[in-house]
Amino acid sequence: MAPGPSNLHPRVIQALIAPLTGHKDPYFLGILEETAALLRQVFETRNRATFALPTSGGGGMEAALVNPLEPGDTIVVGDAGFFAHRMVEIAQRLHNVEVVVVCGKWGSPVDNTELVEAVRKHRPKVLGVVHGETSSGAEQPFDGLSDACRETGALLVVDAVATLGGVRLPVDELGIDICYSGSQKCLSAPPGLAPVTVSDRALQAIARRRTPVPSWYLDLGLHARLWAAEHIYHHTSPVLNIFALYEALSLIVEEGLQRRLERHCLHAAALRAGLEALGLELFAHPAHRVSSVTTVLAPAGASSTAVKAALLEEFNLEIAAGLGEYADGMWRIGIMGHSAQQANVILVLSALEQILQRQGFQPRGSGAAAAEAVYRD
Amino acid sequence: MAPGPSNLHPRVIQALIAPLTGHKDPYFLGILEETAALLRQVFETRNRATFALPTSGGGGMEAALVNPLEPGDTIVVGDAGFFAHRMVEIAQRLHNVEVVVVCGKWGSPVDNTELVEAVRKHRPKVLGVVHGETSSGAEQPFDGLSDACRETGALLVVDAVATLGGVRLPVDELGIDICYSGSQKCLSAPPGLAPVTVSDRALQAIARRRTPVPSWYLDLGLHARLWAAEHIYHHTSPVLNIFALYEALSLIVEEGLQRRLERHCLHAAALRAGLEALGLELFAHPAHRVSSVTTVLAPAGASSTAVKAALLEEFNLEIAAGLGEYADGMWRIGIMGHSAQQANVILVLSALEQILQRQGFQPRGSGAAAAEAVYRD
Repeated sequence: MAPGPSNLHPRVIQALIAPLTGHKDPYFLGILEETAALLRQVFETRNRATFALPTSGGGGMEAALVNPLEPGDTIVVGDAGFFAHRMVEIAQRLHNVEVVVVCGKWGSPVDNTELVEAVRKHRPKVLGVVHGETSSGAEQPFDGLSDACRETGALLVVDAVATLGGVRLPVDELGIDICYSGSQKCLSAPPGLAPVTVSDRALQAIARRRTPVPSWYLDLGLHARLWAAEHIYHHTSPVLNIFALYEALSLIVEEGLQRRLERHCLHAAALRAGLEALGLELFAHPAHRVSSVTTVLAPAGASSTAVKAALLEEFNLEIAAGLGEYADGMWRIGIMGHSAQQANVILVLSALEQILQRQGFQPRGSGAAAAEAVYRD
Repeated sequence: MAPGPSNLHPRVIQALIAPLTGHKDPYFLGILEETAALLRQVFETRNRATFALPTSGGGGMEAALVNPLEPGDTIVVGDAGFFAHRMVEIAQRLHNVEVVVVCGKWGSPVDNTELVEAVRKHRPKVLGVVHGETSSGAEQPFDGLSDACRETGALLVVDAVATLGGVRLPVDELGIDICYSGSQKCLSAPPGLAPVTVSDRALQAIARRRTPVPSWYLDLGLHARLWAAEHIYHHTSPVLNIFALYEALSLIVEEGLQRRLERHCLHAAALRAGLEALGLELFAHPAHRVSSVTTVLAPAGASSTAVKAALLEEFNLEIAAGLGEYADGMWRIGIMGHSAQQANVILVLSALEQILQRQGFQPRGSGAAAAEAVYRD
């Protein structure tokens, strides 16, 4: 129940031990094409350039920045969390790229009016935002962002590492140009792949570069050609990871994306009700909570690290600590993919209740009962 | 029997379906440390900074170049094959890095005297060579390279994608500064990881950079800190791939590295004897054939692509076509890790004999019999 990696469905586990074909085997290339088609359904996009990079989600982030940005360019980043700040840090490493940061408060989204103003003022090559900030549990709205980008010729880059397949994000409808995710969160495939989709508008902007993309490994044009019918040789695909992703995406389409998103909302609502019934304080702004990651403050006097360790040791249950300045006082609980199940929500609430009591914190009420009330409604 | 991915040992397959722990789980961090220790044994190094990058082997190559090289630097690359040329291309993408190419002939190593002269003349930050050139089947000797690098302050970067765990490469003894490989070749783990080792000398050179490493994802200093006892958070490790690599490395240590290298030599010798008995012409220079990849020319009149397809369809046996200008006239056969077995060598020779006959090529003699004679000796 950490915000990734989430548990694997038995069919995904089975896919991992399929016979290992070569990366140029016609069977594998067929799976590659079907995986791209499934990814288009989950991203809700018609982008031809839709595929999975052989990296973590962070590699997807770097690819999304290093491809469009070249020396002399500007990027505007909306920064209200650990992962948005990583965008800033990656952009700052690029040669002669100006980085404009629009700061927000952890737990809330970045103010869209400020983002739009920054885009109009700085006319950047890229506007980068994080859809679901795993570090704070906040969800970024998109109002006005795509219009401002189209108005000024900027590309809208969106981090969907914590949300793709769990939180509504219709890429084409929202006018997103580059969107990337991680395989191990709401998609419930093993960690190791970064799904990404690139609009034709972004591909054209990349093709107009005056300098080559400084990374060969993350060159999106090359990856697009590997995944297209052309199937150029670029790298040895992580074949088994692709098989597993294919199976995980098939499960999403079988469940139905809409039903899956509703399932995430339901379990998030139950979890939050339970945590509040225990007397704990949720961290993210009530109007902007992302369903895939719930952030909750540790009560005064309780050691968040000790509680986390006890959950793992006694209940074989993982939740995450906070990040950055919240490392010691926050828990982050994932509602992601195959892990988002009633039994898991009830377990985390019951286990937390027991362990907190032992640490001298008196729960206000029963977390499990409050969650069950949500499920009954 | 392509030069990667090689087959997985049943224990490696089993490791892939171990329960998926989190990337910060103490159990996983323990496996990470043990994996690093095993990698040191296989690289024959005492380098603290020894780990596996969450990339293909090509990502290892990019990391090995992008970390030491900064604007104003020079690199000398010994280029006698497809993968050495990739080094050239990656270096050419870097901002303001001068790339000096010492060309060799495909099928032979690059001339060491020319490499040493180029290092003395250009005094580069990096000398890059490929140990076993997968595209040509040639092995690069190291005579004089490390001395020239130490003399001039250059770092010796070596591509061991096709050789680590299958061909002798004692990193410390040879004075190699950065060496990288791929998980799916002689190591026989699934594709998706790039083992890498970095000398203290290289770490110091990287630490002296005046500009940040332009890639966050491939920043070797950050990966070293993730794998060291500090275990900083950098990315979500591909946990199951690491479990599988750990098991594959354990198998190497159980077999004994020396015995394993000898096994590769034996099967390569048998394969070559068989191919020559069939009347086929080996491509690589007889004095410089790498045991892990045998390159052989398709006979006049035979379609190398059709033969390759028939092997896959009728015998479930994969070999690779040539690369670059040899795409249509060459086969590349791997002798790698768990795939390097007598039964596989005999199968590839017998199957090739049948299919070539059908294409109107009259084999000179029995490939399988010639190989069996090698095994009997």
